[in-house]
Amino acid sequence: MASDAEDDAEVVRFLLASDTHLGYLERDPVRGSDSFNTFEEILQLAQAHDVDFVLLGGDLFHENKPSRATLYKTMSLLREYTLGNRPVSVELLSDPMDARAQKWSFPAVNYEDANLNVSIPVFSIHGNHDDPQGADTEGPLSALDVLSAAGLLNYFGRVELAADTRAKRKATEDEMIKLRPILLRKGNTLLALYGIGNIKDERLVYELESNHVCMYRPAEEPDAWFNVLVVHQNRAAHSARGFIHESAFDDSVDLVVWGHEHEQRITPEPISEKHYYITQPGSSVATSLAPGEAVEKCVAIVSVCGKDFKVDPIPLRTPRPLVMKDVSLPHEAAAAHLDVSSRTDVAKLLRTHIESLIAQAAREWDARMADVSAECRPEPPLPLVRLRVAYDAQLALGNVARFGHEFAGRIANTKDVLQLQLRRGRAARAPSSGHAVRLDKDMLPAEKLERVELADLVQENMRAQHFDLLEGTQLQQSVMRFVEKDERDAVEQLLQRTLPEIESKLAARHLDEFQLQQELSSAPRTAPATAAAYVAVTTSVGQ
Amino acid sequence: MASDAEDDAEVVRFLLASDTHLGYLERDPVRGSDSFNTFEEILQLAQAHDVDFVLLGGDLFHENKPSRATLYKTMSLLREYTLGNRPVSVELLSDPMDARAQKWSFPAVNYEDANLNVSIPVFSIHGNHDDPQGADTEGPLSALDVLSAAGLLNYFGRVELAADTRAKRKATEDEMIKLRPILLRKGNTLLALYGIGNIKDERLVYELESNHVCMYRPAEEPDAWFNVLVVHQNRAAHSARGFIHESAFDDSVDLVVWGHEHEQRITPEPISEKHYYITQPGSSVATSLAPGEAVEKCVAIVSVCGKDFKVDPIPLRTPRPLVMKDVSLPHEAAAAHLDVSSRTDVAKLLRTHIESLIAQAAREWDARMADVSAECRPEPPLPLVRLRVAYDAQLALGNVARFGHEFAGRIANTKDVLQLQLRRGRAARAPSSGHAVRLDKDMLPAEKLERVELADLVQENMRAQHFDLLEGTQLQQSVMRFVEKDERDAVEQLLQRTLPEIESKLAARHLDEFQLQQELSSAPRTAPATAAAYVAVTTSVGQ
Repeated sequence: MASDAEDDAEVVRFLLASDTHLGYLERDPVRGSDSFNTFEEILQLAQAHDVDFVLLGGDLFHENKPSRATLYKTMSLLREYTLGNRPVSVELLSDPMDARAQKWSFPAVNYEDANLNVSIPVFSIHGNHDDPQGADTEGPLSALDVLSAAGLLNYFGRVELAADTRAKRKATEDEMIKLRPILLRKGNTLLALYGIGNIKDERLVYELESNHVCMYRPAEEPDAWFNVLVVHQNRAAHSARGFIHESAFDDSVDLVVWGHEHEQRITPEPISEKHYYITQPGSSVATSLAPGEAVEKCVAIVSVCGKDFKVDPIPLRTPRPLVMKDVSLPHEAAAAHLDVSSRTDVAKLLRTHIESLIAQAAREWDARMADVSAECRPEPPLPLVRLRVAYDAQLALGNVARFGHEFAGRIANTKDVLQLQLRRGRAARAPSSGHAVRLDKDMLPAEKLERVELADLVQENMRAQHFDLLEGTQLQQSVMRFVEKDERDAVEQLLQRTLPEIESKLAARHLDEFQLQQELSSAPRTAPATAAAYVAVTTSVGQ
Repeated sequence: MASDAEDDAEVVRFLLASDTHLGYLERDPVRGSDSFNTFEEILQLAQAHDVDFVLLGGDLFHENKPSRATLYKTMSLLREYTLGNRPVSVELLSDPMDARAQKWSFPAVNYEDANLNVSIPVFSIHGNHDDPQGADTEGPLSALDVLSAAGLLNYFGRVELAADTRAKRKATEDEMIKLRPILLRKGNTLLALYGIGNIKDERLVYELESNHVCMYRPAEEPDAWFNVLVVHQNRAAHSARGFIHESAFDDSVDLVVWGHEHEQRITPEPISEKHYYITQPGSSVATSLAPGEAVEKCVAIVSVCGKDFKVDPIPLRTPRPLVMKDVSLPHEAAAAHLDVSSRTDVAKLLRTHIESLIAQAAREWDARMADVSAECRPEPPLPLVRLRVAYDAQLALGNVARFGHEFAGRIANTKDVLQLQLRRGRAARAPSSGHAVRLDKDMLPAEKLERVELADLVQENMRAQHFDLLEGTQLQQSVMRFVEKDERDAVEQLLQRTLPEIESKLAARHLDEFQLQQELSSAPRTAPATAAAYVAVTTSVGQ
């Protein structure tokens, strides 16, 4: 697949990373700086390897509305490491104003701005965590837009979605998803960068299957370009249509960079039936203590020469070692004559497992540092340790969080070192599959919390209300945007959209103010939101 | 006071503005862009007048946590207008790293950064709206810090306050408020820029009276410097100690720039007993429909040559005309035989007044545009119109907001064109003085809303709760920070600070978990916050 590239003047080299989740657990006293430390390592690697640019696969930020401290630190890091005198040697051939219709005179690609000394341009699409939100005059904005405005990052892959066309037979020209590439050249190597920022999997599946995704290609020598497509979607088949098939993309693509999935599979994998490869960088910080996150965290240097490329993974040094183990108490009980009703016995057993995991983490760290001289080695970080404990009867353990506190100062995640899984016979082993979450009375609090899906909670609560004036589904979506994306105006926006309609509905009934008030207050199930809408109609309070 | 400066090479010229309140009413369909339009005009004036820098007096932003759209637009405007090839001709003599201890290598003053092409540096202190908040590893951060990190603004005047020393007799060296100036030179003109970002008036009064405010002065030729001090405090005597005396500052100061007060008094006023002048730019956007805001909005070009200076006001063109009038219904009733119980009559009278205000606004606009040729004149903006209506009996008017809707498309503030003031005999005329707000049953909703003080609401609600484990005053302050500053972690931070104490208190009583739970649930008035604290102690939920 790759020929070794000798001539630097012909080789485009970029650093590939994804899912840095800046700000993840930022208030955690132990892990608060983890995401930033690793992002800094990534930027240092970009400098050390003298790359032409950095390419990120989305979820730069963990929160849709990053905190001020996160924004401040991210901007400071980008300013520190990506500005400088080193000239950028990839030439931009596409229109530097392309990425976004702007009223500003400065270009959308930062290194084209004569007022900024950019040494390493950073290109990124948005992920599901940092997707555009809001309905400002500027249109929906992503946190990446703020970095773009500052000239510190080049945000691309914003997909302008038309209204859902799934009902219709054929999309019109306007409704196609148009992918306009960023065109780069170095010597004779031509690189086209396509991006699809995260959209709902189901929608993208539909649009891909309907041939509604249109990749613009250069008119001249279209086949001479090395085409990179960056996406941020589910790759694992969580549900029938809730993921994107590996072979879903156009065969003109040479390399797909797959963000979103946190498991590191950065070494390119060929895709059957297609000519392209997929590289999946994985996350640079573990946001769940799952097996996929325990794979060695890497970034990679991608070298492209003509239509050839190679990918050299670089293991990251800053991520905490993550070690995990599954323990089945029923098995242990049978094998080792464990008395599962004895608090002391159970605690002792779990302690032994955790100690061995801590030792394993220490060995992994030593292996990672093998080629670092003793005096240059940093202090080993506290590891992330996860013990998944299956049990099928009442578990004699007392308070789980307090149990973890025993390991304070030795592991990074005392609060959730144990993950308890109640087994109800053999059949009921699978964790919640999305529907009908069952919260049993005998579950431990931590266990209950792990099983609750935010969307289900919202849905359940909404169902309990009855809205006479507002449409339930829309309100539900707004509440989800409020909760998940911290989109604080989501409900107000819905009201503003819906009010004219409500007004005309009420007006048509020719009620006077008193009758109206009576009618609303006598309606037995009028929910607070309805009342709020009514207040807004009649007094216009709430600017 | 000022000699006309001929020699440009010796004259430091800067544009002075304050209280731009970016993002004010950003979701208002009519006024949403007002603050940005005027900020853009200010930056355009800075370019047109070829100033050496821009100096702002605080409250650049209206919200402590500006929305993403506001941040995006502000950064775009600063990038558009303050970067460029024009060289900055004021030399920075103080340490460019001075403003803030930093782990970064880039300077705190943006035009010292070789990687940025700054044409017009913008210097600003924070106001009460955009003061530093939060307890991150980086220390409290202001929204201005984010602009600083991006290299788009130079934030100064952050005051590091020691713990309140009011109890002690004398502050130690460490507890002094140290004002380190930004030192600028152009030719032989030496300008020192001191800033005190907003702090509580009472605290600053105390520190000033106790001589705890220490102005660092250059060792060489200290008297050769023209000293500008920028503050953002109350100047009007709202209460005994809730404002700063005009004469409170050191006599080494030559010019005080007074932010916070929205009334334009930009022409310098000499201060008796002192040698300095005060210039009060006022706000560039009206955030209340009060007489002070109706004074013509201005910025100014300040020219400093040696120890001489002059201030040339420039009226702003973009702010909406604001016209106001007081109407006393009792008087009108007596004079014009108005029947105040007739809805039609009252409405008719108020309509007439509003019409005449709209006409007055049109005349004011024409006067403002007098020297603009007809073809260059912009469309006149919808004016801000405020009619303050005093009444002493039941007011026959129906719905106030609906009344304003009549003028949709003709005025900018249909929702609050009327301000109703109930007079209770002659004595009870004064509006709420902060204590004991009285909300009478016969008040109109809009009137009630205007009288309610956020702090009172919080206090009242807190008093109704009984907290066994948490300290009331601290909790109250945290809730205020949550509400006023959008400091979403304020309550959690308090809990985190207080938890160890609570834990040891509980531990000392040697209760087992069951007893503890019983005790807490049997306490008749345990408030939700206490329960939350308890959950946090026992399960450590809520990372």
